Amino acid sequence: MKVTVSRRAHFNAAHRLYRKDWSFEKNDAIFGKCNNPNYHGHNYELIASVTGEIDQETGFVIDVKILKDIIKAEVEDVFDHKNLNIDVEEFKYLNPTAENIVVVIYNKIKDKLDAKHKLEVTLYETPRNFVSYSGE
Amino acid sequence: MKVTVSRRAHFNAAHRLYRKDWSFEKNDAIFGKCNNPNYHGHNYELIASVTGEIDQETGFVIDVKILKDIIKAEVEDVFDHKNLNIDVEEFKYLNPTAENIVVVIYNKIKDKLDAKHKLEVTLYETPRNFVSYSGE
Amino acid sequence: MKVTVSRRAHFNAAHRLYRKDWSFEKNDAIFGKCNNPNYHGHNYELIASVTGEIDQETGFVIDVKILKDIIKAEVEDVFDHKNLNIDVEEFKYLNPTAENIVVVIYNKIKDKLDAKHKLEVTLYETPRNFVSYSGE
Amino acid sequence: MKVTVSRRAHFNAAHRLYRKDWSFEKNDAIFGKCNNPNYHGHNYELIASVTGEIDQETGFVIDVKILKDIIKAEVEDVFDHKNLNIDVEEFKYLNPTAENIVVVIYNKIKDKLDAKHKLEVTLYETPRNFVSYSGE
Amino acid sequence: MKVTVSRRAHFNAAHRLYRKDWSFEKNDAIFGKCNNPNYHGHNYELIASVTGEIDQETGFVIDVKILKDIIKAEVEDVFDHKNLNIDVEEFKYLNPTAENIVVVIYNKIKDKLDAKHKLEVTLYETPRNFVSYSGE
Amino acid sequence: MKVTVSRRAHFNAAHRLYRKDWSFEKNDAIFGKCNNPNYHGHNYELIASVTGEIDQETGFVIDVKILKDIIKAEVEDVFDHKNLNIDVEEFKYLNPTAENIVVVIYNKIKDKLDAKHKLEVTLYETPRNFVSYSGE
Repeated sequence: MKVTVSRRAHFNAAHRLYRKDWSFEKNDAIFGKCNNPNYHGHNYELIASVTGEIDQETGFVIDVKILKDIIKAEVEDVFDHKNLNIDVEEFKYLNPTAENIVVVIYNKIKDKLDAKHKLEVTLYETPRNFVSYSGE
Repeated sequence: MKVTVSRRAHFNAAHRLYRKDWSFEKNDAIFGKCNNPNYHGHNYELIASVTGEIDQETGFVIDVKILKDIIKAEVEDVFDHKNLNIDVEEFKYLNPTAENIVVVIYNKIKDKLDAKHKLEVTLYETPRNFVSYSGE
Repeated sequence: MKVTVSRRAHFNAAHRLYRKDWSFEKNDAIFGKCNNPNYHGHNYELIASVTGEIDQETGFVIDVKILKDIIKAEVEDVFDHKNLNIDVEEFKYLNPTAENIVVVIYNKIKDKLDAKHKLEVTLYETPRNFVSYSGE
Repeated sequence: MKVTVSRRAHFNAAHRLYRKDWSFEKNDAIFGKCNNPNYHGHNYELIASVTGEIDQETGFVIDVKILKDIIKAEVEDVFDHKNLNIDVEEFKYLNPTAENIVVVIYNKIKDKLDAKHKLEVTLYETPRNFVSYSGE
Repeated sequence: MKVTVSRRAHFNAAHRLYRKDWSFEKNDAIFGKCNNPNYHGHNYELIASVTGEIDQETGFVIDVKILKDIIKAEVEDVFDHKNLNIDVEEFKYLNPTAENIVVVIYNKIKDKLDAKHKLEVTLYETPRNFVSYSGE
Repeated sequence: MKVTVSRRAHFNAAHRLYRKDWSFEKNDAIFGKCNNPNYHGHNYELIASVTGEIDQETGFVIDVKILKDIIKAEVEDVFDHKNLNIDVEEFKYLNPTAENIVVVIYNKIKDKLDAKHKLEVTLYETPRNFVSYSGE
């Protein structure tokens, strides 16, 4: 009996979409207003979904408190009230598109989970735009 | 690395559930109050989810602005503030149940996407009733 | 101690904004795509808020079940899955703008409340457009 | 053409997470504040998603009114305004974790569906914590 | 320039509506399924809204972190994962209707605010039922 | 018959809370993580609520399309995908707290409304923190 347990979290951050190796004009053509050199920002909403067997002793797949603490340590403490391009190591040379952010978050959380657990991460950049990744 | 990019959109429309080749009584038995001959309506909410590899140059699976424009041209411009039964070609001979609408929307959006991209469409008829289709 | 008790409800309906005494062109200029002669529709969300003293015996301002039943009888049973222009008496000669609908609903619910209770009604035509009226 | 039809429902219930065969201390260590002997409670939100072929006659996978009635009879009438540990047969000897509740709900709804239909149930314990199960 | 600053919080609790000085039958007639002797529960959502002048030095009416901490100490730490009837002092002899709860919460938060600030509290018992109180 | 018409809009922006005339330490003590020199950001949600008499000809208090266009020109075009501290004139010498932003937005929209109309603006910095101002 495989059940998926999901936990929602959030962080507020600034970012800019651009490549340092492209001209401003090329960045502008591809990334439009997301290429504002002064940055813009979002309230990112995050759902981490862990799939596994129910532990017959506890009735848990994973204690949601443990999942909450992993998200706090790996994502919220590192990304919240930060400038993704400047303050977060992973985006110093990686464009912080929603797609790239969700892969980075997936990898950070996956590393802290028991290997028997499958993970999917969904990231809302706005209520209208969101992405998801499950390591495939 | 396959990531799914989702975009939410909406349109407001009137419709009536019935078959022209059935009696009013039979339509009433099957479709109940949705068979009101004067129509009723909904705020339809739509999520189009496109799955594909991240483009290593841009960091996008698909530029969400392109996806937004496809939804606008294929769905919003055609369905919004319309009577689905009368004003929308596809439903002249097809009962506009949520199931049939989501398949029609899937086909219209899928046609405009790169063939390498997988699509899933979710359509909310109300916040409590929704359907989804991924071409399978 | 005056407390406000609110109850949320909803109905799905078709409507058209226009005046029978105006030309199609004038209606089109004022009401735009809301003037589609074939109608369009909405999932209307409704909040009825009743303000009064807490009854010291029950701890209620008004039993929310009573408020729910009033909304059902006065609004949902009359408006749900209907064409407001054709099926609802009040809009046969009154343009069903959100403003006019909220006043009609206010009057219908207010009539069924104890005179000592103050009422405010909020009506969402869409999640982005809403109106409210408190009889003033 | 396989479409998934989803219906959202809700129930309000009290529960306590603990095992009768464990000491209070062990229950406290594992279940923390969820082990309050006086119970706490939730507004549970439920989504039942039924996947199948569209019936070419009706345009329905399943009449959503039938799905709504199954959820009412199998879940809402049995769980709503109840203490899960005391009032609901299935949890007399089963810890009512979200994981265990979703499996119980899945089995109750699945039993009432046509065998050709696939089911997934998602259960929100809070807006931030939710689980899903599809019988696999 | 009077601005209102609002902070949303939540707690999960069990409760039962009844009066100890009434018979079970009378409680049942007035409070219906809310009178389950084994309790039921809710995810309560709370909005505390503080109105006052903007401090010209900080640009704050009230530092929202201070408001958050007051809500945590006065409401969440006392009500969350509790049985309101048994575990919370204020409801030992007061029926925990939404109306009575919102007045209790208002008084607890108001006591900790600067006297120059006006307070309104809104309490959602469910997404469909909510109450508000502003001390008038 | 005074009815309030509300329109919801949104913009995504970066900001930093600090005063140029204070030391970093003092800014840090007062504004905490909101004082990140590299900025952070939000999806701001905005509700503009206009109160006035219903025009007996049109059934509108204000054509919501006009209100939508005012919000777009005055707020979205100026604030969206911007750094409030650097890119927006009004915040060059004014700390962009939610309180100060809502007053600026109120003044910009109020200037474009008919003088007979009353305005209230609510601004969500996050789903949990929001402010409102009505010019009093």
